[in-house]
Amino acid sequence: MDDGGSDIQALIDAMARLPGLGPRSARRIVLALIGRRPGQMAQLSALMARVADHARPCARCGNISDTEICPICDDPRRQTGEICVVETVADLWALERGRAFRGRYHVLGGTLSALDDIGPEDLGIPRLLSRIAKEEVQEVILALNATVEGQTTAHYIADALPEGLRVTGLAQGVPIGGELDYLDDGTITAALRARRNF
Amino acid sequence: MDDGGSDIQALIDAMARLPGLGPRSARRIVLALIGRRPGQMAQLSALMARVADHARPCARCGNISDTEICPICDDPRRQTGEICVVETVADLWALERGRAFRGRYHVLGGTLSALDDIGPEDLGIPRLLSRIAKEEVQEVILALNATVEGQTTAHYIADALPEGLRVTGLAQGVPIGGELDYLDDGTITAALRARRNF
Repeated sequence: MDDGGSDIQALIDAMARLPGLGPRSARRIVLALIGRRPGQMAQLSALMARVADHARPCARCGNISDTEICPICDDPRRQTGEICVVETVADLWALERGRAFRGRYHVLGGTLSALDDIGPEDLGIPRLLSRIAKEEVQEVILALNATVEGQTTAHYIADALPEGLRVTGLAQGVPIGGELDYLDDGTITAALRARRNF
Repeated sequence: MDDGGSDIQALIDAMARLPGLGPRSARRIVLALIGRRPGQMAQLSALMARVADHARPCARCGNISDTEICPICDDPRRQTGEICVVETVADLWALERGRAFRGRYHVLGGTLSALDDIGPEDLGIPRLLSRIAKEEVQEVILALNATVEGQTTAHYIADALPEGLRVTGLAQGVPIGGELDYLDDGTITAALRARRNF
């Protein structure tokens, strides 16, 4: 394709490799950026350069941050004593959007996998255990995905945790607004088993 | 949302405003960029800065280019004598992907609109007329969208063109691979009216 400039084509190609984008949406984005008021594209580029320079995993919890300790770990208003274990930073952000949890997090960065040679050390599980001792944690919430890999990893962590600690997992059931007819059988079975008094 | 850094959140917000993206896809893209090998995000940022600096409309045809005259206008192998008029740069790129047209283009940048106060000058129609005189054009292909606005603009241009010029439009009909049952009535009617010997 001859689009009038190799840098423009290179930018489209690079954008097309981002998750959820393809050649068509990348072309649309690049054309929109070029068509906007001057400076807006340069601003986006500068912002991206700053994030590329500074974004790194929080030394304590693994959240992405542009400071060594992320704002959640650094916030004195967050409750100590509760650690919520999640697979990814995206999961942490999803929980934060819910605003229901006021403790701190621990990001594993994945799940245990013999096939991919991912062991407990790769997921920072020893670091989690040392945090539990140091930060006087009373409850660990295992908020891993409800997948086979997530639940296998959750069981491994639950077994590794010291005695006397409260260990919980997210409730499973019908999502808010969910229609039974569209739910998978496993979820319906789990919701029925965990039924509550009305 | 507390995601661990205002630059990161600002980047997500900026990406979420791009066409076709929203908060969820922007978060996914930014996390993927942070998670990739170091340098890749900086590269994308540098590429974007270069395009922001250099991309501009070709002085002759209006295609986006990082040179004053775009590679298509500048290519001596392209036929002179044929100008294909399109609404947007995206349309030009779409035609180039087809590799069927070997002449040159003229990008209007929109359609005539009394409501939005867009007149012939805003679309570079006087510039098109002077190109036709200067470049010894024999055929003008009006490749505007098959919408009311596109066809109104096409008729206006056809009326403004000098006598003795061949003026054509794209054929209308059933798309390749198209199924009649899924086509709108207008397309089927147009395809039937323009039927060919088999």
